[in-house]
Parts: sequence; C-alpha cells; structure tokens
Amino acid sequence: MASSSSSSSYSNPPCAACKFLRRKCLSGCIFAPYFPPEEPTKFANVHKIFGASNVSKLLNEILPHQREDAVNSLAYEAEARLKDPVYGCVGAISVLQRQVLQLQKELDATNADLMRYTNNEISPYNPRRMGYGSGVGSYNPNPGYSVPYSYGENPGHGSN
Amino acid sequence: MASSSSSSSYSNPPCAACKFLRRKCLSGCIFAPYFPPEEPTKFANVHKIFGASNVSKLLNEILPHQREDAVNSLAYEAEARLKDPVYGCVGAISVLQRQVLQLQKELDATNADLMRYTNNEISPYNPRRMGYGSGVGSYNPNPGYSVPYSYGENPGHGSN
Repeated sequence: MASSSSSSSYSNPPCAACKFLRRKCLSGCIFAPYFPPEEPTKFANVHKIFGASNVSKLLNEILPHQREDAVNSLAYEAEARLKDPVYGCVGAISVLQRQVLQLQKELDATNADLMRYTNNEISPYNPRRMGYGSGVGSYNPNPGYSVPYSYGENPGHGSN
Repeated sequence: MASSSSSSSYSNPPCAACKFLRRKCLSGCIFAPYFPPEEPTKFANVHKIFGASNVSKLLNEILPHQREDAVNSLAYEAEARLKDPVYGCVGAISVLQRQVLQLQKELDATNADLMRYTNNEISPYNPRRMGYGSGVGSYNPNPGYSVPYSYGENPGHGSN
C-alpha cells in the first residue's frame, strides 16, 4: 500500500521500525508499509511485546495481502498486553464470553415467555419465567476459544 | 506453587524453559513454576511468539500471585497466533463481538414483541416484529475493546 522509492535504498524518512531500531530503512523493508513514521508508538508497542525479529519472521511467513491485518492484530494485542500485563487481550475474550452466555440465557428466557403467550398458558399481564427455553434463536457461546481460567475472579487482576 | 529444592541449584529435571534454552535450571528460575517439564509445547509456543526474554521481563514486572494467570494468557495468545498467524486471538474477539451484537438485536426484538403482547397491541397468534426495542435488558456490546478491522470479510484470512 505504501509507495516506495525506485532506487535500491532510501533513507528519508525511515519507517517507524527502522527509526526505532536505528538502522537504514532500505527499499523493500518488511516493516515500512505497516509502520509509517507518523505512528512511532505502534512499532514500539509491538516490539516491546513480540520483538522485532519475531514480527519480521511472522510477516515473511504470510502472504503480502494479509500483512496489514496481521500487523494491526499484533498492535492490538500488544496494546492490550501493555494495558493489562496479566491478561492482555485474553481478558477481553473472557468478558465477551460471559456476555454471550448471559445474553443467550436472557434470550432463551424471553423466547420461553413468548412461547407461553402463543400457547395461551399464561396471562399477558402476568408473565412468569419458569426456566430457560429450548434455544430458539440459539447461538453457540463457544466459538472454539475458551480461556484457561476465570478472568475477573482474581481480585488482583490487572494491577501490578 | 511449585516446590523448589533447598540447595542453591538443581539440574534434575530442568523446567521446560531451561530444557528448551539448554541452560541450567537454577533454584528461583522465573519460568520453573509455570513451565513444568511435562509441558514442553507450552514454553515452545510462548517462546516462538513472544520470546523468552520478553516473557521473563513481563513476569518480573508483575506480582508473584499474578504470574500463573499471565503465563496461561500468554500461552493462550501464542497458541492462537500459531493457529492463525494473521489474526491470532484477535479473531476470537471479533467473532465474539459480532455474537454479542447479534444476540443483543435478537433480545431487543423479542422484548419488543413481549411488550406489545402485554400492551395488547397484537394478537398472540400473529407476532410481528416492527423494529428493535428500547433496550430492555440491554447490554453494552463494546466492553472497551474493538478490533481494528472487519475480521472475516477478507476472504484470505487465516490461510498462509
């Protein structure tokens, strides 16, 4: 996406990665398209959490059109880990998993109420929830990811 | 949590980290309690994604009682990144965020139906959804995390 000079090397301006690493930013620099000099923190964060060498390796292992998304997801993970050194973005997964479970429960209960109305089992003026329904509009609360502990139950989480 | 020998050093068996790094596992090794020799992959994954030095730094910056959770969340992130080099566990966040939004929509619509029944606006035999409700039982679909792109819209995601 970022254009590069047609010469074999250029030094002005170096990308944020090369500037941070105090090295010459050569044409074809793997970092340059994704770490523009205007966003120095993006590279600093990713470098602090993953290390420049690991990021470079990862970018070289994936297809060029996937690299921008990969860098953005690495930057997201790095920022989350700096904000919460204990849980990083896995904390977000835990919060969201609980939200999904809670919403699914609410939805099942509300659908069960609705079913009882349509069956005339209860008066519309006195809805009673007698348990959770059969999963009308059911969602799988676990998309294949489950965190290895109960986030938020540890009173010391997130602080250091 | 893991017991250590009372001598100033021990070499049998070294923890998974020291074994991987081919170094002597000294008493007080920062990795030993969290990377037992029976789980060599856990350290190998974390090392490949974050680097042993970054993990060691992170563990030294947090309180001892937080380290087990930190290692488990790092292992979770590392495994997710190895499975999906482009999105890592940020892919899970994106999937879960969409599930939360979808469930919230369904719940709002179902609650709106229920409200119309109780107001006798519609027959219980002919429920109609005329739009989304006012947010009864409303949840905040954004717990402070939002991914920097639309995961899943790129047809090439996750492959390499």
